[in-house]
Parts: sequence; C-alpha cells; structure tokens
Amino acid sequence: MNKLLIVGTVAFDAIETPFGKTDKILGGAATYISLAASQFNVESAIVSVVGGDFPEGYLEMLNSKNINTTGIEIVKDGKTFFWSGKYHNDLNTRDTLITDLNVLADFNPKVPENFENPEFLMLGNLHPAVQMAVIKQIPKRPKLVVLDTMNFWMDNTWDELIEVISKVDVITINDEEARQLSGEYSLVRAAQKIHKMGPKYVVIKKGEHGALLFNNGDIFFAPALPLEDVFDPTGAGDTFAGGFIGYLASTHDISFNNMKRAIIYGSNLASFCVEKFGTRRMEDLTEKEVQERLRDFKELTQFEIELN
Amino acid sequence: MNKLLIVGTVAFDAIETPFGKTDKILGGAATYISLAASQFNVESAIVSVVGGDFPEGYLEMLNSKNINTTGIEIVKDGKTFFWSGKYHNDLNTRDTLITDLNVLADFNPKVPENFENPEFLMLGNLHPAVQMAVIKQIPKRPKLVVLDTMNFWMDNTWDELIEVISKVDVITINDEEARQLSGEYSLVRAAQKIHKMGPKYVVIKKGEHGALLFNNGDIFFAPALPLEDVFDPTGAGDTFAGGFIGYLASTHDISFNNMKRAIIYGSNLASFCVEKFGTRRMEDLTEKEVQERLRDFKELTQFEIELN
Repeated sequence: MNKLLIVGTVAFDAIETPFGKTDKILGGAATYISLAASQFNVESAIVSVVGGDFPEGYLEMLNSKNINTTGIEIVKDGKTFFWSGKYHNDLNTRDTLITDLNVLADFNPKVPENFENPEFLMLGNLHPAVQMAVIKQIPKRPKLVVLDTMNFWMDNTWDELIEVISKVDVITINDEEARQLSGEYSLVRAAQKIHKMGPKYVVIKKGEHGALLFNNGDIFFAPALPLEDVFDPTGAGDTFAGGFIGYLASTHDISFNNMKRAIIYGSNLASFCVEKFGTRRMEDLTEKEVQERLRDFKELTQFEIELN
Repeated sequence: MNKLLIVGTVAFDAIETPFGKTDKILGGAATYISLAASQFNVESAIVSVVGGDFPEGYLEMLNSKNINTTGIEIVKDGKTFFWSGKYHNDLNTRDTLITDLNVLADFNPKVPENFENPEFLMLGNLHPAVQMAVIKQIPKRPKLVVLDTMNFWMDNTWDELIEVISKVDVITINDEEARQLSGEYSLVRAAQKIHKMGPKYVVIKKGEHGALLFNNGDIFFAPALPLEDVFDPTGAGDTFAGGFIGYLASTHDISFNNMKRAIIYGSNLASFCVEKFGTRRMEDLTEKEVQERLRDFKELTQFEIELN
C-alpha cells in the first residue's frame, strides 16, 4: 500500500454559522485531509502537535480510520491550537474570532517511523518553515508533493513560502490567493506565473464555484456540487486536498488524466464535508455514498457532442 | 429550416473597460442573441425598434448573417435606445452611466410576416409588457419559449414579470436575480421555487463561474472557459442565451440531453463575445473557431471514472 504523509494542524475549532454554533470540536487541516484520504486504499500518517487537553478519543477515531497518529506529538503541559470563527449569512465569508496558536507556536515536526520515505507528501496549511522542515527530513524525494497554503503566509512569511513553493509539484490555493501570489487577475495568467515559481500543477479552489487544475497549457475544471443546504464550510478546502492526494496515492498514477479524477473525488468529498458541523459528516461517510455522489458529478458535468 | 423569433433591444452602447473605451457602437440584447444564433442552421428574425439615427449598415450586417430585420421598426424622427456603462477592474461589476430609452419608451412590438408561428421564441431582456405583447401575437404556442430578464424588472414591474414567467418554458437569469426572484439563497432551492412559477427549465448564469441548468431534480453545469484576457463582458449573457436557443432550434430537439449541449454551445459562444469590444468578435466568428473551442470545453470538463 502506498504511503501518504500529511503535515498540518490538529486543532480545536469553535464554529458559528447561520444554522447554529459549536463549542470546541475536532478540527485542523491535517484532520480533514487525513479523513478525506482515508476514503481510499492508502496508508497515511499525520505529523502534527497537540496539547495535553486533546482527547484520546479523537486519536482513537483517527486510528480507527487507519490513520497513523504516532507523528502527532503530545505536549502534556501545553494547550491544543484553537481557532474560532463566525460565518456570514452567505457562508462564503467569515470572521476569525480567536486564533490561539498554543503548542503550535514552538512546533518542531518529526516524521514518524516507517514514514521516512513516503511516496506522497501533503503539506497542509501551516507555517512554511514547518513545511520546509518536513521536506528536509525526507531523504528521497516523494513521487508527489502537494502544498496547501493561504494568504496569511503570503502576507507574513513571503520568502519562506516562496522557497517551499519552489520545491513542490502541486499547489492548492484559492482564487484570491492565486491573484495575490502572482499579481495577475486572470486565473489563467496567474497559473502561468505560479508554474514558473515551481509547481507543475496549480489547483485553484473557488469554493462553491468549483476548482481549476492547470498543467501548463492544459486546464481541467470540476464544479462544486450544487447543494440545497451548506451547513458548515469549515474544512472543505482541506477535505478537497485530502481527497485529491488520497485518490492519487491509492492509484499511484500522477498523470494529468488521473489528476482530473482526483479533482472530481476532492470535490465529491468536500460536498459531504459541508453537510454537518466540523468533521462529523466525514467521520461516518461510506464508500457507497461517495460512489453514489460520483454519479451525480457525472450527470452534472458530462455531455456528448460530436466534433466536426 | 426552423424559425426562431427574437424579441429584444437593438441599441447603441458606449462602453468603458480597463482596456479602453468606445463611442456609440452596435449593441442590444436582440443583436447579440441573433448573432449567436446565426452560428446555427436556423431562420431567425428580430422584433425590435430603432430610431432614424440607426445606421443602415448595421441592418445590412445582420441581414448578411441571414437574420431577418423586417420586424425592426424604424422610427424616423426618433432616437435609438442608448446605454452607456463602465466596468470596474475585475470586469464582474459595472456602473450604468446612461440609459436613454428613446424610441423604446413607446415600443409596440409587431411580429413580422412569415414569423407569426415560430417554433422557437426568445424573449430577450426587455419590459415584460413588451414580452407579453409578443406572446399574445403568436396564436400557436411555440415548441419552446425562452425568457431572459433582470433585476430591474423584478424591482419595477414585478406583477407583469411574474405573468410572463408563468408562460415560458425556460428562464435565464443570473445568480443574484435567481435569489431575488425566489427569496432563496441556495441556487438549488431557488430553482425549485422558480419551477413552481412556471418554467420547467431554469438556467442560472454565473458569469465567469459558468452556468447551471435545472430541470426539477436534474442539474447540469457548464463552466465558462478560463481566458487569459476578458476584454469586454457586454453582451456575454445575451450571446449565451442566443447560442442556447439557436442550437436547440437548429436541432429541433428540446430534450434535457440536448439542452446540455445547448448550454455548452452558449458558453462556447459567450467565451468569444468577451474577446473584443461589443459585437466585433461575434461578427467575424467562424464555425471552425467554434468547433475548435468545443474541443477545449471537452478537455476542460470531461473525465472518465468507472462507477463501482
């Protein structure tokens, strides 16, 4: 089975949407990525850090999904990273209310045993210095390295971020971040510039408007599934990335055609993620449900036209 | 050959975009719709009105595309409808600078000879009373009636608009208008409510984010083609609608599967429309170019996944 190493936050989130609010629940980029990837036949491990306040039950839940958590350092006298946010009525925008880095402030990532040479490496949204530290601990270059990042690191750690970007195969960012990173408004031009920074593949996430995959001249687009209700968008982008790399790792095929399928699987899983608060929907998601929704995606996008 | 009757404005536009500005050039919903539809094997005619200031050359250009203009009333001592707008840097939003209704203010539409019983009727964006007057002049119900409208008529002529909506098969509006018309934020829920107002098919245009086609439970999505540069978005929505109904009229097939193709053709033609100011690109567009871009749309959207 192919190995997938996931670096990212494991956290507490407190979320408020127009439909309700939660106390501290399980969150974090690595959590969502690993849950999405667990839908595929892949051996995955998380590199992260939590505090002594992190419930054992959460780790057990991840382990039950065949996610290796030995790389999650537990700082006994520390507190777990905490994020709190409130979504606006349109669910497309949100205010961050609290960001308590806690144990994340001094995080030195350590790649766990048996994962020193993963075939697939997912660098979840995190300080680029941490992402780089993991890259450096892996002697043999993975078959595919995927980087997720955000505007915060562009604003505050530009040089470090640019160095990480130069070392990855795929970058996933949203449309505004692609514009900020490239200085180009057109996403086609933005992708062209970002290719020159390193990544052969550029994935631009547009939330409810879908996602674009660029590989030089080639472009593929996957829509988000139109839903009657979006309950909580938290983790949708990470779930998308986890589905993307999880599918690629399970098939061990990084051709552009297979990346198309991976983008569809990412969108598919993200459409479940938003149906309940936090990780709830991803925890009980079955392969049968994913397959059924794949049918919806085909009906939504596939057509037959004879070319002259 | 199937007959397509198009009701809508024929106008002068003055446009300013970040890339330049024009004096008064040819514009109007019916103009764009008819030019798009002229890409297909269909006999079309426009019902509209212009002033004595409208250049004969514009009518000749339309005639050269096999568009019947005998239903365009010429009010010798009147002035042609004039619209002027300025696009913001993102090209997604614009300010209307001038709207001079001129001869449009007292327009009594008259269906031209030989088009009293069109198989296809396109009601372009216009006062709903004018749209209704055309519906009433057609004794035999067309095979398909498509309505395009906008928020302005929702704000100002709600009751008349609702009556027209109750009489059509397809409505095309943008996402914000679908929300305004239905009172629902979710586009899936919005489409459900709009179905109940009459239209069996609801097309929601999302500009650069593509278009959705709803037919009760069935949904189809076509992306906009990602472009390096968008020069002038004026007329893109009308071109989309014209491509949609033009393709349907030429194939005489109004099944959901054929509407999928029609939506793709609409997106295809709209992607050309925005490449130059006004109608310029549509005037010189060739079938070969359209076919080549169809290949781009297939590459952009089609994938192969085996369902379990």
